[in-house]
Amino acid sequence: MLTNNQRKYIQSLHQKKFRQQSGAFLVEGAKSVQEVIASDFTIDLLLTTEDFRSQNARLIDSQRIPAEIVSVSELERVTTLESNNAAVAVVKTKENRPLVAGPDEFVLVLDDIRDPGNLGTILRIADWYGIRKLICSETTAEVYNPKVISASKGSFTRVSWWYGNLAGFFAEVNPQRVPVYGAFLDGKDVHGMSFSKGGYLVMGNESNGIGPAVSPYITEKITIPRFGEAESLNVGIATAVIVDNWKRSTK
Amino acid sequence: MLTNNQRKYIQSLHQKKFRQQSGAFLVEGAKSVQEVIASDFTIDLLLTTEDFRSQNARLIDSQRIPAEIVSVSELERVTTLESNNAAVAVVKTKENRPLVAGPDEFVLVLDDIRDPGNLGTILRIADWYGIRKLICSETTAEVYNPKVISASKGSFTRVSWWYGNLAGFFAEVNPQRVPVYGAFLDGKDVHGMSFSKGGYLVMGNESNGIGPAVSPYITEKITIPRFGEAESLNVGIATAVIVDNWKRSTK
Repeated sequence: MLTNNQRKYIQSLHQKKFRQQSGAFLVEGAKSVQEVIASDFTIDLLLTTEDFRSQNARLIDSQRIPAEIVSVSELERVTTLESNNAAVAVVKTKENRPLVAGPDEFVLVLDDIRDPGNLGTILRIADWYGIRKLICSETTAEVYNPKVISASKGSFTRVSWWYGNLAGFFAEVNPQRVPVYGAFLDGKDVHGMSFSKGGYLVMGNESNGIGPAVSPYITEKITIPRFGEAESLNVGIATAVIVDNWKRSTK
Repeated sequence: MLTNNQRKYIQSLHQKKFRQQSGAFLVEGAKSVQEVIASDFTIDLLLTTEDFRSQNARLIDSQRIPAEIVSVSELERVTTLESNNAAVAVVKTKENRPLVAGPDEFVLVLDDIRDPGNLGTILRIADWYGIRKLICSETTAEVYNPKVISASKGSFTRVSWWYGNLAGFFAEVNPQRVPVYGAFLDGKDVHGMSFSKGGYLVMGNESNGIGPAVSPYITEKITIPRFGEAESLNVGIATAVIVDNWKRSTK
């Protein structure tokens, strides 16, 4: 049984303001909760149905997760998902620590990606291709948004992120020495390129692309060749295609 | 001004049952409506704000589109979009005509893709890469669903589709002579493949992949290589990456 205060607290975490105040966010549904338990995130509280608890007893016990058994109807009162018969975890957010690309490391940079579904999809793509770091403009969707967490399908546990000022970041990184690829509609054809193993790939806003503050730091404008008539590709799709081309040219 | 009957009729087209009864569907928002007017679809009725009407006067008049001026608030009563200050078109559905791949033509086949957003994204990808034909299992999301139309960003006007029984279709096509590629998790690495210029690419259901009725007709199982730990990629993402690999190996 949840107390009223617990219920209100968990529901408050649907909103960014309260996530930031509390330093906590929600992870929901069987798969995502299993992944977050097995990760290095700290879980404040796990709400779980009896079934999910017993199916995952070893995992939950070995990690000493504070768990509260609830009914499906109680769970559905606090989840943001359309249906959830498994679990909701209240998880501590991580400190916003600066990240840079290590030697021969490829890092994704998001300049003002607004849609939470796109950000979640990009986390999943990064995880598929073995990219471990994501650098986001302050205007990019908040990674702790439940829609991002849900769309990432557990990949948020294997990718690190830093939110900050991209122009300031690149001014320090010295792009003379590390390539900074940027996706534009009029760049070099990715099919003909040989990418550097390490570097940064900047993907821009859904409507406006890479902004004027970041553009000067792009050392190589790149483009997915078009063979038909669609005006553009969704930013998640474009990220996947470019990363796939990067990976096949450097492996 | 819309009559009550007009309003009810348009709202009924939010539902598949009434779209099928009426042989009509909705195209909504400035960009999609401009594209459908310029296409070979037949428009029964265009609801347009004064602004959209005057900005697109030449297009609307040249195509002799029956147009009705409405207020933004009237438009928002009948649209499925969150906001729409431009237009809604009532458009005739097309006959479900069988399609096959022409010589050297590459055709996409969807086996039970359920999510309308995924189907819309796949239409946009097809259009970007110059694929003109889509063959869908009867269980695949309905292309006239407003979410599909909206996610396709106008690309539904440049791609043809046929819904039917895939096993029956492939039994007739004779895959001995035309390659039928199928996306699996344990197939041949697409990075190392040389694709045939023409053929079929089958993409399967979001959770279960390609079903047992269609599997026997796949002549080549293919896979996007994984370098990290995500369990899978979204089907729209996977379609884009495979099509991109096909295109670069055959152009």
